[in-house]
Order: sequence, then C-alpha cells, then structure tokens
Amino acid sequence: MDNRLKKIAILGSTGSIGQQALEVIRTFPAKFKVVGLAGGKNTDLLKQQIEEFRPAIFYCSAEADFAPGEEFLPPEEIASHADVDLVIVATSGKAGLLPTLAALKAGKTVALANKEALVMAGDIVTAAARRHRARILPIDSEHSAIWQCLRGEKSKPHRLFLTASGGPFYNYSPSQLSRITVEQALRHPTWKMGQKVTIDSATLMNKGLEVIEAHHLFAVPLEKIEILIHPQSIVHSLVEFADGSIKAQLSFPDMRLPIQQALCYPERLPNPQLPRLDPLAGEMTTLSFEPVDYEQFPCLKLARDAARSGGTYPAALCAADEVAVELFLQEKIGFTDITTIVSRTLEQHQSTARPSLEEILAADEQSRKTALQIARQVSLCP
Amino acid sequence: MDNRLKKIAILGSTGSIGQQALEVIRTFPAKFKVVGLAGGKNTDLLKQQIEEFRPAIFYCSAEADFAPGEEFLPPEEIASHADVDLVIVATSGKAGLLPTLAALKAGKTVALANKEALVMAGDIVTAAARRHRARILPIDSEHSAIWQCLRGEKSKPHRLFLTASGGPFYNYSPSQLSRITVEQALRHPTWKMGQKVTIDSATLMNKGLEVIEAHHLFAVPLEKIEILIHPQSIVHSLVEFADGSIKAQLSFPDMRLPIQQALCYPERLPNPQLPRLDPLAGEMTTLSFEPVDYEQFPCLKLARDAARSGGTYPAALCAADEVAVELFLQEKIGFTDITTIVSRTLEQHQSTARPSLEEILAADEQSRKTALQIARQVSLCP
Repeated sequence: MDNRLKKIAILGSTGSIGQQALEVIRTFPAKFKVVGLAGGKNTDLLKQQIEEFRPAIFYCSAEADFAPGEEFLPPEEIASHADVDLVIVATSGKAGLLPTLAALKAGKTVALANKEALVMAGDIVTAAARRHRARILPIDSEHSAIWQCLRGEKSKPHRLFLTASGGPFYNYSPSQLSRITVEQALRHPTWKMGQKVTIDSATLMNKGLEVIEAHHLFAVPLEKIEILIHPQSIVHSLVEFADGSIKAQLSFPDMRLPIQQALCYPERLPNPQLPRLDPLAGEMTTLSFEPVDYEQFPCLKLARDAARSGGTYPAALCAADEVAVELFLQEKIGFTDITTIVSRTLEQHQSTARPSLEEILAADEQSRKTALQIARQVSLCP
Repeated sequence: MDNRLKKIAILGSTGSIGQQALEVIRTFPAKFKVVGLAGGKNTDLLKQQIEEFRPAIFYCSAEADFAPGEEFLPPEEIASHADVDLVIVATSGKAGLLPTLAALKAGKTVALANKEALVMAGDIVTAAARRHRARILPIDSEHSAIWQCLRGEKSKPHRLFLTASGGPFYNYSPSQLSRITVEQALRHPTWKMGQKVTIDSATLMNKGLEVIEAHHLFAVPLEKIEILIHPQSIVHSLVEFADGSIKAQLSFPDMRLPIQQALCYPERLPNPQLPRLDPLAGEMTTLSFEPVDYEQFPCLKLARDAARSGGTYPAALCAADEVAVELFLQEKIGFTDITTIVSRTLEQHQSTARPSLEEILAADEQSRKTALQIARQVSLCP
C-alpha cells in the first residue's frame, strides 16, 4: 500500500463530479490532499470548499469576491502546478480541453470526467500523454469498466460494448420526443450527473461521445465499438477478446465508484459511504441487453459519422451540441431541435484534416456561431 | 507472441475434456505438440489418438494390446516427464490426485480439469505448487472465469460468486427427484461434459466441489464464496472486490474455451472452431441470477460442511460421491440415494486433522468401503 499522500487538483469542483470527488476524498483523509480547486458560477460552494480543504491554489471563473493573488491561478496553471500529482478534470464541455493538455504536458496523471477533451482533440491529447509519459484514467463509468476489464490483459480487445440505460425516453415516439420538457429530461432514471451530461444522456449524444472517447482511450477502431441498451445500469460495459471471452464490470450505479477507482488505482479500498451491489439480495435478478436503435436516437449516428469523417468534425459536433443543450436548458428550443441544430451545423462545417490544436479551437468557435444561427432559424429562439 | 512449441501431456485424453483439449490443439498446430497421452477404458479411441498425435509417451489403464515398453509409462511419470511443459489433468475423481502432485513437484504447469485433487488434498497440492514454483491453471469454466477476472488485480478478491445453471432438475419436487432416471440426469441443459461431472451437476455436488476448489485455488475463505443460479450459463462466475466493483466473465458455454485459455495463457487467440457469444445477436437478451436453494440440493450443504470441518472430510466426501454416482450410473441406486450415501458416509467418517497424503488416501479407501456398505443397506444394490 502506498501511504504517501496523493496531491489532488479538481477542475470543476462545484459540479456534480467535482462534489462527488470531494466526498470520496473526505472518506480517505490519509490518502489524499486537495491542493487545487477550480470552480465556476457557484461561488458560495467554492468558498465553502476552499474553507474546508484549504487548497494552496484555486480559481473561480466568476471571479466574484476572489482577489487575484499568489494562490489564484488559471485552470491550466493549476493543472500543471508542481505540487499536483493528479488532476481531476470534471468540467463539462470544451472547458476541459486546455487544462487536460496542460496537465499531461506536465506529466500529471489526469482523471478524466470530461469527454469533450478526447472527442475534440483525441489524437493530440493521447499523443501528449504518450510523449510526456502521463496517464489518463477514465472517470466515466463505461470507460472505467473497460479499463478494469483490460487490466492484466496482454492482448488488445477485439470489441467493446458500451452499455446505455437508454435514458428516460427510450421507446418514446417522435411526437412524444418533441414535447419533452427540461424537467423531464433532467430526471435520469439511474445516474446522478450534471445537467449537460444528463441532457446528452436523454438524446444519447452522450453515448456517441463515449464511443469516440473509448476509441481514443483504448485505441480500438470505431467500428469495433458497439452499444447495448441495458436499462438496469448494473453492467457498465463489456470487453470482448480475440478468443471470444467477454469480461464485464458491474456495480451499483454511483459515480463515486469510478471516481474512487481513478483516485486509488491500483488499490481497491472499501468505502462504507458507497452503496454496494449485492447479487444475493435480488439487485441483479434480471439483466437485459439489446442493440440500440440508431433510428430513434439520431445523435448517436451524428456522433459516429463525425468521428468517422475525422478532422474537425468531432469538434464541430461538440460545439453544436454544447450550444444546443444550453438553449434547451434555457427553454429556448425543443428537445428534438438539439438533433436538428447539431446535424445542420455538421452539414455546414468545413473540416480540416489532421487539425492542429488552433484549428480545432477555431472549428469550435465557428461551429458555435453556426449552431446559434441555425437555432434562430429553426425555432423562436431570439 | 511465444512461438516455441508448448509440449503437452494429457491425462484422460479419451474423456470429454481430453477429447476437447485435442480439438483445441488440432486448431493450433504451430503452438502445441502432444508428447504424452494417457487414457482408460476406451482403448480404440486412445489408439486413434496415438496414431494421430504420435506422442513419445503414453499410458492405458486398461492395458489391452499395449505392450509395455520404453514409451509406456504410468500417469505420474508422464506428468513429470522431462519433455513435458504443461500437463492437462482431465481424469475424473481421485485418479487425478497423484499425477497432479507429480507434475507440480516436477515444476510443470498443470491445467486442471479434475476437481477432486484440490478437494481431497487442497493444502498439499497448493503447497507443492508454491514450493516448486509450478502453476495451476484452472480448466473448470467457473474457475477460469475467476482467474480471468483476477488478472492484473493487485488486491485480493472480497467475494466470489460461482454461477450454476441449476442442472436439469432445478425446481423439481422431492418426489420428482426420487424418480429421475440415468438418461434424464445425463441430459445437461447447457454443458457437454463427462458422465461423472454431469451427474454431479444434477445433484449440485459439482458446485459444492467447485466451492472447495475455488477456496484452494484463489485462497478465499469458504464463507466468502457464494453460489448464484444462472440458468443461461453465459456468465461463468463473478469476482467482487473490496471497493464493491464486480467483474464477470461471459462466453458461450463450451469447455473448449477454458481449455484454450489454460493452454494459450497469457495469449488470447481467435479460434474459428468455437461458437462466439454475440451480445448484438440476442444471445444475452436476459441474464438472470438468484441465490441457490440449499434445502433443495443437500449435496451443496454436505460439501460446504465437509470443507468447513476440514481434515479428511473432503476426501471422504469425494470418495462417497464417486461410489454413489457410479452406482447410480449402473442403475443400482436412485438419484436421491446419492445424497443419502454421501451424507451417511460423512457421519461415520473418523477425520484426521492436518492429514498427510497417506492419511488422505487411507480416508478415501475407507470411505469407499463405507459408501458401498451404506448403498447395500439403503437400496436393492447387491
């Protein structure tokens, strides 16, 4: 057992994953020290967290009441700070990309909850990790499952199966889908997550982004990554090997477990705070699996197509989705408008092959503008 | 990839596992060379196998037409022969014990399909493996599953869940059970196996022996090894870790896969002969799991009690079961008499604590006599 304190920085500490990461850290005071925190709009919570954990460095994007000083640093500097061992990137959307790259270039271990960094710039991010011998440990439950199933395996996986609960609207008709409210969409049947990822789960865009993420994290071709609808959210993903053997990871659906796995790796520590799945207690009486319906969830196909086309298409996908989800959350567009906006943005996108980071960021910016323009056309959005 | 030919000896080559092992070996002629074969009563098949694979050494317990010569050696000598890298112990019952020990003492890798060696003398067998730095690789599908799930894990498992199809008579009433014929009992719903293990699967004695086997193979306390009824035989076992994460191994139920895993480890090679489980093709639409009913299958409790009592009780259990199953196969006793014979043999057994190999073999011999006597009392058996 490694008894040295692991020094942790959390980017997005006031979000859902950030708060759950701090819960895990509270459970193991002898294992971790919080040295950096960065939060956004929820300044009251960030202040409480700073009060409790007394990090040496912190950041607040809202900047209210935080007097910039020696300890006030931008996220990229927190992520690459000499005092940090492991950076939890728990921001949502594009905000995760530059700090992830900064952390990897400084050789830090990155516990990655942010999908967009890998989706937008997977080749650049994984190349940075290789070059600087830095590790990326997944916090997404599906990727954590795959990572656990691959431990100790010498051969590459043959196929990956990402499981999906199907979200709250699986089997809804098109007309039902068009009338979905924000409140309905934020009520995820099995997982407690942030708003952006909860809406992405309802459109299944989240699963599409996860396919691209898995492709980069595990170097598996896109066409070897499948999706299985598994409403119970007990099996978090499966790996098929060349010999036909399949391994799966199961647990009660609680994000604190994959967070703990990334923080504690390679140790597995009992955590009395976490609900445990007990196979004897009827919690897995029936597990069901079925192929996903790509017709019903066009965002899945949009994500796969963007990944297959490559270039800056995945960055355009992320940008359009981020804009569209934000507009839906503001009740400015309908649920099915999200797909329309992403789809039309991609149609209008001029992709750059083998893009540089700058080209990816430019594609992101351009696509956000395009998405907003399309939103104005398709709906009453001002 | 290791391109050196692995030199294989198979004890029990004419049995179900032996034949399936040769099928796997035929698929990978560049990986394996059969150097030793040992068979029993099926001398015609053994001759065919010798003709095809031309092993340097062989053995036939029936001895018909086999002129003892330089190449004719007893199983223990085949198992420990200088030319052998890996020994597949595929004999059933007590016959596997001494060759397994001989192989381990010679530092060979043992691919173990025989449960009784570990059940009768688990402490002695595992100590021999440790002392001579020899590996035991499980061929039983459940133990192969656990072994795969433990790969690359630094921490010990918290609990093991062995899955059981429940056999052909799950949910039968006591009076239905008493009328079961040999033909019915040999019709296992999901697995193709030898006669002894198929009957043991119907009484669930097989699962009881597997609990004891797992206890020795993975050094997990008996009370941390649970049984789950899983009629589909797709999930072959599960491992729960300290942090609450569970890993499972899944595949189409075919013994050639665990055999191949033991032969090819650590490689995973595609085998076009093997049926593959395709999660997209509806082969795992529903997987169900429920705790086993110890009341309905008293052999399970007998096995657990024998293991908990320790000493020579597990050897007495194996001996009585081997006698009783043989009598049932000869249609001399009824299906439920198997339990009665094993139970009464254990009641009469005088156990020796921390037994030597000789004491274990003596307990085996004595218990066979006791079991036969009891059989004469309980039934029309002559």
